[in-house]
Amino acid sequence: MARIGILGAGGRMGQAIARAVAETGATLAGGTDRPALVGEVGGIPFTDAATLAAGSDVLIDFSTPAALAGHLDIAAAAGIPIVIGTTGLGADDHARIDAAAQVGAVLQAANMSLGVNLLAHLVRETARRLGSDWDIEIVEMHHRHKVDAPSGTALLLGEAAADGRGVALADASVRSRDGITGARPEGTIGFATLRGGSVAGDHQVIFAAEGERLELGHRAESRAIFATGAVKAALWLAGRPAGRYAITDVLGLR
Amino acid sequence: MARIGILGAGGRMGQAIARAVAETGATLAGGTDRPALVGEVGGIPFTDAATLAAGSDVLIDFSTPAALAGHLDIAAAAGIPIVIGTTGLGADDHARIDAAAQVGAVLQAANMSLGVNLLAHLVRETARRLGSDWDIEIVEMHHRHKVDAPSGTALLLGEAAADGRGVALADASVRSRDGITGARPEGTIGFATLRGGSVAGDHQVIFAAEGERLELGHRAESRAIFATGAVKAALWLAGRPAGRYAITDVLGLR
Amino acid sequence: MARIGILGAGGRMGQAIARAVAETGATLAGGTDRPALVGEVGGIPFTDAATLAAGSDVLIDFSTPAALAGHLDIAAAAGIPIVIGTTGLGADDHARIDAAAQVGAVLQAANMSLGVNLLAHLVRETARRLGSDWDIEIVEMHHRHKVDAPSGTALLLGEAAADGRGVALADASVRSRDGITGARPEGTIGFATLRGGSVAGDHQVIFAAEGERLELGHRAESRAIFATGAVKAALWLAGRPAGRYAITDVLGLR
Amino acid sequence: MARIGILGAGGRMGQAIARAVAETGATLAGGTDRPALVGEVGGIPFTDAATLAAGSDVLIDFSTPAALAGHLDIAAAAGIPIVIGTTGLGADDHARIDAAAQVGAVLQAANMSLGVNLLAHLVRETARRLGSDWDIEIVEMHHRHKVDAPSGTALLLGEAAADGRGVALADASVRSRDGITGARPEGTIGFATLRGGSVAGDHQVIFAAEGERLELGHRAESRAIFATGAVKAALWLAGRPAGRYAITDVLGLR
Repeated sequence: MARIGILGAGGRMGQAIARAVAETGATLAGGTDRPALVGEVGGIPFTDAATLAAGSDVLIDFSTPAALAGHLDIAAAAGIPIVIGTTGLGADDHARIDAAAQVGAVLQAANMSLGVNLLAHLVRETARRLGSDWDIEIVEMHHRHKVDAPSGTALLLGEAAADGRGVALADASVRSRDGITGARPEGTIGFATLRGGSVAGDHQVIFAAEGERLELGHRAESRAIFATGAVKAALWLAGRPAGRYAITDVLGLR
Repeated sequence: MARIGILGAGGRMGQAIARAVAETGATLAGGTDRPALVGEVGGIPFTDAATLAAGSDVLIDFSTPAALAGHLDIAAAAGIPIVIGTTGLGADDHARIDAAAQVGAVLQAANMSLGVNLLAHLVRETARRLGSDWDIEIVEMHHRHKVDAPSGTALLLGEAAADGRGVALADASVRSRDGITGARPEGTIGFATLRGGSVAGDHQVIFAAEGERLELGHRAESRAIFATGAVKAALWLAGRPAGRYAITDVLGLR
Repeated sequence: MARIGILGAGGRMGQAIARAVAETGATLAGGTDRPALVGEVGGIPFTDAATLAAGSDVLIDFSTPAALAGHLDIAAAAGIPIVIGTTGLGADDHARIDAAAQVGAVLQAANMSLGVNLLAHLVRETARRLGSDWDIEIVEMHHRHKVDAPSGTALLLGEAAADGRGVALADASVRSRDGITGARPEGTIGFATLRGGSVAGDHQVIFAAEGERLELGHRAESRAIFATGAVKAALWLAGRPAGRYAITDVLGLR
Repeated sequence: MARIGILGAGGRMGQAIARAVAETGATLAGGTDRPALVGEVGGIPFTDAATLAAGSDVLIDFSTPAALAGHLDIAAAAGIPIVIGTTGLGADDHARIDAAAQVGAVLQAANMSLGVNLLAHLVRETARRLGSDWDIEIVEMHHRHKVDAPSGTALLLGEAAADGRGVALADASVRSRDGITGARPEGTIGFATLRGGSVAGDHQVIFAAEGERLELGHRAESRAIFATGAVKAALWLAGRPAGRYAITDVLGLR
């Protein structure tokens, strides 16, 4: 089975990925983090990125946007694929990923859960088939420490719904409601945000028509599924030809 | 069984109450509405309020705040109890109800469903027993025509939660979330509003702690339950001594 | 807009369909029921089936299996399409429908709700894509008067899941659990049945894996949606060429 | 803060309790397990039960029914309280606990979660107040490895509902439904069981009447809450006078 190297292995997600690699039966090639972190940390041998790449069949990157360019270069130089789970990427970063995908296999995803990505696919297909007499609402709940609303995953689901309807989310979304709002404008996509406790991430997309509702949802029990998803993506990506891939490719959804 | 007179019988709720009276097996004494509405409308004999009161054992008022004072006087003059379901009441109206309750039995409620009022009781008791490490969130969904958010019933549930905690809802409530909100402040009570389709009214109060959640909710399948609740309240109120009552008294919750 | 004739117009569903026709703006050609029912009933002109067919562009049949053969013949003789919502059909009935579909357009469905039929499609696609490490469970709730379990719609959803997985539902289904059941056998499809109150029909299909769940559900607020679905199907069917159609064709799901 | 000793510290729950003690800031006095386990295991100093009791202010027992009598004697000899979370207790075991509660403080519970025990209280109060025109249904979901149905917690909730109604659960319960069941008998309490994935434990009690539903539920995100509940119970119990206590006492629900 493929040897997996973790870029950003010292962080919370990096540690979770190391555990996920062990549970999958794949080989953990090692990890990198800030230069000061060398040697063995939490059972993972740390080294520099180029050395790590030389001993890996595929890389998983959960570090920072600032490190992205260097990591793409190292993967290209080593001739191995790379999975990008780093969040907060900008347009420049996406352009870099597109360029890297000309010479190697790159998979980038905002959410590594297979379940959430399949849900987004179902939401797109449902929105495509139902008319605007079906109102779309998206509600999510996350733990009390989360600082932004709606969640990135809720927005990903909103993009899927808007795409299915052939509209731009920015034009259709109603991000919150309070006070005298008036009746719901037809064709809008509403968001509602709940925060509390230690919820890892619950999302539900509701399609509501006269007399009936479709409710399509996902519950994450813990953050471990995001790590497991990244490892599955890496194992799928190892040995693929150059190109930019998404989690939906792993599921055969394109 | 008691003879029930309906003030505001021409409106949507008035008509629903007339149907509910028939289903309960109680006697429909008749109805009133604008002066122009006299004779039989939808199977209900219409008359003026004083004549109606003379032939009734109890009145149900779903008219307008403007008509409240006159209706309270007529109930007092006839010596019969009155159920007030009219919404949009102000402080003056509540003072009038308090005065009327010195001489007769008056029951006023923002929501006539026994289920919702029992839920409010459960929420109050739960909030009283759980510490502020249990985050309270209230989410509701109503049909696309509803013009205000959160619903009056969601606010009623919020008041119950705040009361149980010994805080003022106005100080604790977070009415919506969008953008960079920061972490959830401890002790707050959050609201989230969904709109769509023809939903008669779904409410859920979530108490979320580290690792577990209590979810206390209510679903109304149709507006008929609010009519049924009003009729049950009227039958319970008939023959009671002077005083101001609530739906919780019907349930024995005080 | 098409003129719609209702076979079995005296029953509860027939009456609901007549109301749905009126709300859609289509023309109600009339209805049939037992021979004794002639003249106007509940605002619907009753006649015999052949006369009704002569004045209709499409028929909707919610009568009995015993009347099916005659109704298919009458539709064929009049050269108009027919929607079959009658339940309890056997293999012989389906063979008759297949034969009739050689000469005219016939649409048959166990559940006329667009939402439920779309849900079945989503369940099939999801089961096709997810491995057997995702356990499938189906839970439904109906009113207290329902006499069978699981509901026909729950079984329809189970068939969709089994079809997506390439197994036979009869081989995979676990219809209830009580006592010492042992661990859940991999690849099974479980059912759970709730009964109570006046619930028109709630269904949920859960795909549960290690650490995450997909929940795909449908809520019917009232039986009116089944009538509305039948009328939409009839308007879609009017003017179609010979063939056997399903609700999924109306949605473009094939 | 109190020094806590864990009887059965080598098992999965024992280890979880050790982590919960550390997170609470209480002092872990040590643990016991089979005689062979002595020394330090997983960071916990192991010893024999009498030595452990001498250095503890309160004991938590998650061992086996066979060890219960000896553990109660040791707690009594040391003059300290004991929390019993061991499951599978019989009538003899409960008699022993009652006897031990004459001389020391003993708290025994089938489920250590504060949330579940509060839910049982709410269910009892709700069942007490609502008539038998509100149908009671209990649905639960647990992971695929669970071997019995319904869960012990679902039965605990059923007992609470039956108690609130003044009936015996054994007389009222409908444990599963399949086939032609006939209409739902009034006054029954229905159970439905879902199994799949890694669900730690979801429970919902539904009260369904004509047109409305109350839904009271609990979700456990992980088994850690049962450990946390045991530690909170132990800290509450330390220093209490002799008597038999329940989790509901910790919540002030009696």
